[in-house]
Amino acid sequence: MIYITRKEHFNAAHRLFRADYSDEKNLEVFGKCSNPNWHGHNYELFVTVKGKVDPETGFLINLKELSRIINKLVVDKLDHKNVNVEVDFMAGRLASSENLAIAIWEQLEKPVNDAGAQLHCVKLFETERNFVEYYGN
Amino acid sequence: MIYITRKEHFNAAHRLFRADYSDEKNLEVFGKCSNPNWHGHNYELFVTVKGKVDPETGFLINLKELSRIINKLVVDKLDHKNVNVEVDFMAGRLASSENLAIAIWEQLEKPVNDAGAQLHCVKLFETERNFVEYYGN
Amino acid sequence: MIYITRKEHFNAAHRLFRADYSDEKNLEVFGKCSNPNWHGHNYELFVTVKGKVDPETGFLINLKELSRIINKLVVDKLDHKNVNVEVDFMAGRLASSENLAIAIWEQLEKPVNDAGAQLHCVKLFETERNFVEYYGN
Amino acid sequence: MIYITRKEHFNAAHRLFRADYSDEKNLEVFGKCSNPNWHGHNYELFVTVKGKVDPETGFLINLKELSRIINKLVVDKLDHKNVNVEVDFMAGRLASSENLAIAIWEQLEKPVNDAGAQLHCVKLFETERNFVEYYGN
Amino acid sequence: MIYITRKEHFNAAHRLFRADYSDEKNLEVFGKCSNPNWHGHNYELFVTVKGKVDPETGFLINLKELSRIINKLVVDKLDHKNVNVEVDFMAGRLASSENLAIAIWEQLEKPVNDAGAQLHCVKLFETERNFVEYYGN
Amino acid sequence: MIYITRKEHFNAAHRLFRADYSDEKNLEVFGKCSNPNWHGHNYELFVTVKGKVDPETGFLINLKELSRIINKLVVDKLDHKNVNVEVDFMAGRLASSENLAIAIWEQLEKPVNDAGAQLHCVKLFETERNFVEYYGN
Repeated sequence: MIYITRKEHFNAAHRLFRADYSDEKNLEVFGKCSNPNWHGHNYELFVTVKGKVDPETGFLINLKELSRIINKLVVDKLDHKNVNVEVDFMAGRLASSENLAIAIWEQLEKPVNDAGAQLHCVKLFETERNFVEYYGN
Repeated sequence: MIYITRKEHFNAAHRLFRADYSDEKNLEVFGKCSNPNWHGHNYELFVTVKGKVDPETGFLINLKELSRIINKLVVDKLDHKNVNVEVDFMAGRLASSENLAIAIWEQLEKPVNDAGAQLHCVKLFETERNFVEYYGN
Repeated sequence: MIYITRKEHFNAAHRLFRADYSDEKNLEVFGKCSNPNWHGHNYELFVTVKGKVDPETGFLINLKELSRIINKLVVDKLDHKNVNVEVDFMAGRLASSENLAIAIWEQLEKPVNDAGAQLHCVKLFETERNFVEYYGN
Repeated sequence: MIYITRKEHFNAAHRLFRADYSDEKNLEVFGKCSNPNWHGHNYELFVTVKGKVDPETGFLINLKELSRIINKLVVDKLDHKNVNVEVDFMAGRLASSENLAIAIWEQLEKPVNDAGAQLHCVKLFETERNFVEYYGN
Repeated sequence: MIYITRKEHFNAAHRLFRADYSDEKNLEVFGKCSNPNWHGHNYELFVTVKGKVDPETGFLINLKELSRIINKLVVDKLDHKNVNVEVDFMAGRLASSENLAIAIWEQLEKPVNDAGAQLHCVKLFETERNFVEYYGN
Repeated sequence: MIYITRKEHFNAAHRLFRADYSDEKNLEVFGKCSNPNWHGHNYELFVTVKGKVDPETGFLINLKELSRIINKLVVDKLDHKNVNVEVDFMAGRLASSENLAIAIWEQLEKPVNDAGAQLHCVKLFETERNFVEYYGN
């Protein structure tokens, strides 16, 4: 079993808030992340897949194919977008890093499997000092 | 003459567009940076000042004081904010990195001077692959 | 189960030595790290906690609270300090990275638990080329 | 149980190809990595070992000794070399990152064990956006 | 006057040697960089241009256009190539970082000018510890 | 004219204080950097030299020689040392980054010149957020 990781990135706007909270309550719970005028990040995304090395190619998976899957299903939907209002797979979810990592996992699990590897970890940096990791359960 | 640099950062949303352009024209000129729903960045800001070393302290300037000035006049106004709609010193300016660096210079020039140093350079990273530098003229 | 990590840092002096060794023996075992006049590092500390996402907030834990705990119990006691002589939770322990990571774990385990998450890993960089990880047993 | 990691690096040339493939087939499977005139990388290597802390020294393993082992058995054989034609432990293997990480593991497993620790992970960056990890099985 | 920088990268093989030197002399002058079987690097390239901000767009130059120029004239010719034998603009030149930076400058000076900016600096990292800068004379 | 830079590093302890100040005054002026028990840093040092490319070698200067000079005259005297009490060229000087950069310049200027290049800049990072640059006057 070997693990291979591809790093991608996207720049997006977001806001942490609940529509059923007052502005004061949103500010109390989410702090400045609740700013109604949005803020944003350069997100760094590390996708790790695992599996066996193909003796014919020396590859677990062709990284170009892995990168193509991540870009089509995740990066193209998030880059230069507003996570709260424009991203189909985040509809109805709070735009926290935790929820975003889980949603990215759901986007990638089956396509990575179809490409012959197994999704192992989605690691998402919101800033260089804060990141989340999700392993699928 | 010695140069000393302090790095600060802020996370903000922005959009590149002109109100007097059509959506199509904005898209043509500014690409996906014109997204009406905003996007955002983790901006990294490097402020360089120059001057003589004070033989009493070994300092050009006390970095705590420099950091305090940058935070009060720049970072607190930009962090978790929308550059286009909430930042007084960017009112009426296109929210490009170039204009933002120049505006930050204008905020800092006099206060840095009052603190006993001379502002030398404002360097602003929008992403790790794109940055601007402004030296005051 | 999701994992979230917060990065903090501190600058400290330390020395590797045993009082019951001669200077020659200390030099032989600990090399230049045994310098009696101390040396120091910019330590980078990554604290990872795990748990379930709160559906109300989208958070595993509020990162501001996690950062507050780490700063109060670890960073404030180590930053600009001498690990060997000033840090209560390192008293009587060799100031190696291994021992420091374990001691930091002991400081954080209960408070992180009280804050509603589970401490998963303490990762400590002494330099960018050397780091230790401790998972609690 | 504690984990300690040492980072080393080497610069090498390589090529992905199979002698039993035509040039067209190599290009189709391996893309520009199959260039017959070679290309190269600044490889970053992270070797993680695990074990118990020696109460006498506060060390899991002396990092100087770990570094010496990695340099003698791995770095000196790869640095400023051609992975395909000059590296004894890669003879007859496709020079992929996956195979290189596995081969490095095989080089290090016994010597690390003889030095009193247990090899835990070989992590190899081919570029800052692509890396593999191998845990020994 | 404002300065804007775009970072690009390429992976390439090279060798430092003179055909009119013996192998011994090449080894003496160029060390392990003279290895006849090549070695390689992940080169990081920073191209800085300068000029005035266009009040209409807030841009000095459209970074997409600058990136397109650098990729077409420099990166596409170097990436996954052998600097000594495959790069037209390096023909007949020693493949040192110094010469490579100067040759990249020559490739970019006129096209950057035609795009409305002025080439200011070509900065080329061979490794993270060695880099050269060229300002055009 | 071309510029080439070599990065080196050292880990050291230091303290900012004046013997002719009271403890209170030292604390007021130098803050926690005045801690009598010392603290320390992983210093990163970038030395930039300039000159003409030798057409015979393609080099401005052999980087191995530049590295040897920096290590012998600067790094070996500072690494795992106490800047205030053990470094000959810092005797009688406040151990600020500003003074350290200037002292490093004085150590390197003549030897770099003797090696056929001209010292251009000493850039010293005390932390990743604070650095000084000195150009010789």
